[in-house]
Amino acid sequence: MTFVNLLELEALARPCLPTAVFDYFAGGAHDEITLGENRRAYDTVMLRPRVLVDVRHRDLSTTLLGARLSCPVLVAPMALQGMAHADGELATARAATSVGTIVTVSTLSSVPAEDIRPACTPAPWYQVYVHQDRGITTEILGRVSAAGYAALVLTVDTPVLGRRERDVRNAFRPPPSVVFTNAAPSGTMPAAQESKLAEYFTARHDAGVTWKDLEWLRRVCSLPIVLKGVVRADDAARAVEHGVDGLIVSNHGGRQLDTTVPAIRALPEVSDAVHGRIPVLVDGGVRRGTDVLKAIALGACAVLVGRPVLWGLALDGEAGVRQVLTTLRDELDTAMALCGCRTLGEITRDLVVE
Amino acid sequence: MTFVNLLELEALARPCLPTAVFDYFAGGAHDEITLGENRRAYDTVMLRPRVLVDVRHRDLSTTLLGARLSCPVLVAPMALQGMAHADGELATARAATSVGTIVTVSTLSSVPAEDIRPACTPAPWYQVYVHQDRGITTEILGRVSAAGYAALVLTVDTPVLGRRERDVRNAFRPPPSVVFTNAAPSGTMPAAQESKLAEYFTARHDAGVTWKDLEWLRRVCSLPIVLKGVVRADDAARAVEHGVDGLIVSNHGGRQLDTTVPAIRALPEVSDAVHGRIPVLVDGGVRRGTDVLKAIALGACAVLVGRPVLWGLALDGEAGVRQVLTTLRDELDTAMALCGCRTLGEITRDLVVE
Amino acid sequence: MTFVNLLELEALARPCLPTAVFDYFAGGAHDEITLGENRRAYDTVMLRPRVLVDVRHRDLSTTLLGARLSCPVLVAPMALQGMAHADGELATARAATSVGTIVTVSTLSSVPAEDIRPACTPAPWYQVYVHQDRGITTEILGRVSAAGYAALVLTVDTPVLGRRERDVRNAFRPPPSVVFTNAAPSGTMPAAQESKLAEYFTARHDAGVTWKDLEWLRRVCSLPIVLKGVVRADDAARAVEHGVDGLIVSNHGGRQLDTTVPAIRALPEVSDAVHGRIPVLVDGGVRRGTDVLKAIALGACAVLVGRPVLWGLALDGEAGVRQVLTTLRDELDTAMALCGCRTLGEITRDLVVE
Amino acid sequence: MTFVNLLELEALARPCLPTAVFDYFAGGAHDEITLGENRRAYDTVMLRPRVLVDVRHRDLSTTLLGARLSCPVLVAPMALQGMAHADGELATARAATSVGTIVTVSTLSSVPAEDIRPACTPAPWYQVYVHQDRGITTEILGRVSAAGYAALVLTVDTPVLGRRERDVRNAFRPPPSVVFTNAAPSGTMPAAQESKLAEYFTARHDAGVTWKDLEWLRRVCSLPIVLKGVVRADDAARAVEHGVDGLIVSNHGGRQLDTTVPAIRALPEVSDAVHGRIPVLVDGGVRRGTDVLKAIALGACAVLVGRPVLWGLALDGEAGVRQVLTTLRDELDTAMALCGCRTLGEITRDLVVE
Repeated sequence: MTFVNLLELEALARPCLPTAVFDYFAGGAHDEITLGENRRAYDTVMLRPRVLVDVRHRDLSTTLLGARLSCPVLVAPMALQGMAHADGELATARAATSVGTIVTVSTLSSVPAEDIRPACTPAPWYQVYVHQDRGITTEILGRVSAAGYAALVLTVDTPVLGRRERDVRNAFRPPPSVVFTNAAPSGTMPAAQESKLAEYFTARHDAGVTWKDLEWLRRVCSLPIVLKGVVRADDAARAVEHGVDGLIVSNHGGRQLDTTVPAIRALPEVSDAVHGRIPVLVDGGVRRGTDVLKAIALGACAVLVGRPVLWGLALDGEAGVRQVLTTLRDELDTAMALCGCRTLGEITRDLVVE
Repeated sequence: MTFVNLLELEALARPCLPTAVFDYFAGGAHDEITLGENRRAYDTVMLRPRVLVDVRHRDLSTTLLGARLSCPVLVAPMALQGMAHADGELATARAATSVGTIVTVSTLSSVPAEDIRPACTPAPWYQVYVHQDRGITTEILGRVSAAGYAALVLTVDTPVLGRRERDVRNAFRPPPSVVFTNAAPSGTMPAAQESKLAEYFTARHDAGVTWKDLEWLRRVCSLPIVLKGVVRADDAARAVEHGVDGLIVSNHGGRQLDTTVPAIRALPEVSDAVHGRIPVLVDGGVRRGTDVLKAIALGACAVLVGRPVLWGLALDGEAGVRQVLTTLRDELDTAMALCGCRTLGEITRDLVVE
Repeated sequence: MTFVNLLELEALARPCLPTAVFDYFAGGAHDEITLGENRRAYDTVMLRPRVLVDVRHRDLSTTLLGARLSCPVLVAPMALQGMAHADGELATARAATSVGTIVTVSTLSSVPAEDIRPACTPAPWYQVYVHQDRGITTEILGRVSAAGYAALVLTVDTPVLGRRERDVRNAFRPPPSVVFTNAAPSGTMPAAQESKLAEYFTARHDAGVTWKDLEWLRRVCSLPIVLKGVVRADDAARAVEHGVDGLIVSNHGGRQLDTTVPAIRALPEVSDAVHGRIPVLVDGGVRRGTDVLKAIALGACAVLVGRPVLWGLALDGEAGVRQVLTTLRDELDTAMALCGCRTLGEITRDLVVE
Repeated sequence: MTFVNLLELEALARPCLPTAVFDYFAGGAHDEITLGENRRAYDTVMLRPRVLVDVRHRDLSTTLLGARLSCPVLVAPMALQGMAHADGELATARAATSVGTIVTVSTLSSVPAEDIRPACTPAPWYQVYVHQDRGITTEILGRVSAAGYAALVLTVDTPVLGRRERDVRNAFRPPPSVVFTNAAPSGTMPAAQESKLAEYFTARHDAGVTWKDLEWLRRVCSLPIVLKGVVRADDAARAVEHGVDGLIVSNHGGRQLDTTVPAIRALPEVSDAVHGRIPVLVDGGVRRGTDVLKAIALGACAVLVGRPVLWGLALDGEAGVRQVLTTLRDELDTAMALCGCRTLGEITRDLVVE
């Protein structure tokens, strides 16, 4: 399999997947306005390239929470990758490792977190939804901590699951062969097909998590905590005050609250509020190397890519994901050369017109 | 009957109705620019959700002119609902009662105001057009007051009827079976089909109503008065000075003066001018729970929903209207959870980017 | 013939006319961007109607250069109306008279100015292009002055003819039966078909007319002078300094310089510069009564309507033009009622959001 | 061959060219957003024409680096014109000479620079890519200097070649008959077909050229130096400091870094920074005489036109290119007349609304 860019992947992957699975991956909340704007917002940020810089040698690497990455593109947490490919999260993890970046494993992974861990260098991050039964979460966090995960990604934009109308119309439920492997105490893995996803989620996850629970989280698990789903300066400032270790500016890929501000538009106020005290990342709509460059110019230290990874996975497993990541890396490399940037540090805000 | 959201209702209801009736309900004035912009304006207000708030328990209730509502969504006044369903305004009223909100009965109702009243808890509001023969209006207001209506909604954007070109092309007139039941002295109900609606309206209603007539209105009827159709800060301030009890920011669903500002765009200046002294509501274009949240963030205490109620009514009578209202309520509930709001009071202006 | 609004007229008239004639009337310069924007610009000016005004009696009349008009809508000068209907400018003039407004007769009229004059009450205006041979112009102006025309409209946006590519592709020339009747010394009326219009124009008209020539014009003709084609504040101020009697903000209906600012967008700076010292009119894109109201709110005392008159003329001669003018008048009447305006003077700038 | 305007040329030329060649000429980088915006940005700059100026005589001529041009439109450097027409760059050069303007010869010309020179009056400019093997560049510059070229155009927006996905999909390589004639030491002209263009370019050209290399360039060649590809005020100021003789605001016709600011939008900041000290030109998207006028109003002293020249060349060789240039000249002439400008110096910034 081969493709020219990440934008054409969705159409290529569509015939490889059952409609309901494709829709689950591709869709967003309600009218999918944020889903679309996440992408369009990148296209309307204009670039002001610098010239006559010696760009023969570019360095795309960065350090994030102590880990060295070859490129500022991480894999976003995505549920149930077993629906895309039999290798599921394992293939994704291997691809990320092969390009030297970090994969974020979802609470709703179809492969147990422990089984993914050995495939990952640098060490992966683990995405957390807090269960109403806090004991379940405590148990899982103990496992991922023991397995050597590098950080927790606490998703804060999902007290309840957003209404994704494609899934409602499809009465979406994962195929019987794909089960949640982390979301219950080990030994009692529930089959995902027992309930539709939204019902499953609502029944188990806790809509009552607050800033205070960060103390609890830090007590039960010593890993660095990254909040995913912050789009406001005041929440960003509060996160720093509460000792959070990183932020991901995100609207959950447009899957939660429709008409939320596009991620790249929320980034500047968040990065300005954080003022360099902790790393800020962004996800949602990243499809081009120029998008990565724009995100960095606007204050991100790295981005996460989501759906394109699933399309690559569906099309060609680990190799497909690898091509997604290398395409983005190569495009970023070219964009840096054309903007007169030799390092990520040289990607300054004056390169963009918001 | 079942549907996923309010936006798909118009297309679902269309085959259930004669073309001329569908057009009368769906259409707007002239080029229907305001009709469309009412809706699009909501889509372009972006949300800035707050995170890490304990939103396990949400309270959507509010108090309006002394009545307790389960949810800040009222039913807008709409004429001749008998054209949509044999039960007409009765079905609508029962549905509103079943979800604990207020229905506004139109002067041009096809069911007499007295017959609707018993179906309503909380007590309904009555929408008033002033007749050239003020005695007719006095008589009607005496009836609705006696019947226990809770408030008058004086429509102020209709000194003459807007030109709705669909109706002109269709030479629209209500079917013989549907008659105006409030718009004449009791005992002499005119059959609506005697004349086309625009002619009927112009011949009977008074284009000379002014601020001074509010005194007259208060003399003949002691109910609280809500003005419907205000879009300017100066008119809003004057309304407060004249002792008006509430305002509805409205352009009559785009049916009166085309290219009037979209309702949600007019709301901030009105709510700023009123400064909390009286309740401000808004109608026109509300189709999503996020729209309700945006309206409240911009200063409304509640919204009114119009056409979707008619579509629900046409599709399934009382049950259809109930589903319209519960869908909107459930979407608002989810939107509040995802914005970190437990009560309507927590829906503050910083949640939106205008 | 009957129609619902002026926007549908172009499509209705198209089959009544030879393609090249239709294109000559309908088309604009180059990419027809200004042609389209003239219209769209009106649609994006939003209205802020006032409520609770006694609008039972509306007065649309106005006084312009001493003449009383029933309605602030004049007929713009348009060439060769004989191509639209056998009665040509005579039918247009009679229709304008029947609704009590002024018609502007073009230098390129297909009926002699003297023959049109008796049909007109109030007295018509005469549109002037200055010939390279000033004697021709002097002779014509003597004729129109003697005939009792009320004003001269000097078109200042046409030192050379704009490139209208439809005409280029059609190798447009008027049909043999239609001749210019004013554009040459009486007794030697050239047949229009002798040359294509652009060649004809360039060969005869003077690209060297300047502000100084206003003195000459005033010497050879004592009629008031209205400049047509001003879009800038500085030119407007200069016009007042030179004793001009009126201004028409115009881009020649998008037929001269493509991407010129839309007329309604140029109006405020012109009316602000003039500051009420002389009347300011506007043409280009007026199709709705709300457009007239918007123009007046932004400083015009009246508008001119062009192409719709030609479509009415093509469809039904005098009666067609009359319906165009009465439709616009009736729409203005309704728009005034719905904006709370009883007179043109009450149409203030706060009614619009630019 | 004949055509009405430059915008229709692309469609006319398409059937004359192999798909891969057409795509190479027509295409841009990535999603071709800048390619499209270059054009659209001109359409959204609105004009404010001045009236009543004597414009019988217009003078479009200008002086550029000491040369007299009949019209402020130069031919942009474009590679491999032999793919469009057997006469290639020779036909283009002759056409430019026939209208009295300057042609810029590309490093990647398919006709040797020496062979083009005699066809050119005024003397041509030579576009330079610096080779990794500086000796090659030194050798070429010696040749063009000896041949009598008037200036060097150093392209600074191409340290690496932008990714043009049409070329990737077509596996584009020039046809065997078209070879690079300047890009290697004389005597060892490589056949272009030996490698694909992007590979060829990357393998040979130097991504390490900096401001310091301007000294080297001036040492090996005494011709004036014009930088092509500057879009920022700071780079423009630095260019003046380094003694550069001219600037071309350009994003390489959208072929290098997609989503770079449209050229006409970057022009004002560059011309403001330069403040008249050296000539500023602009290319990218110029298709109309009004575009040329807008560029001059925004600070350019001339523009360069690219793709339309190729389409004219493909359609009719020298005659086709000549028609492209005369069409643009004639349109500029008309636009000046209609804006009240007799000379390029009278095209001031107040004529445009940005």
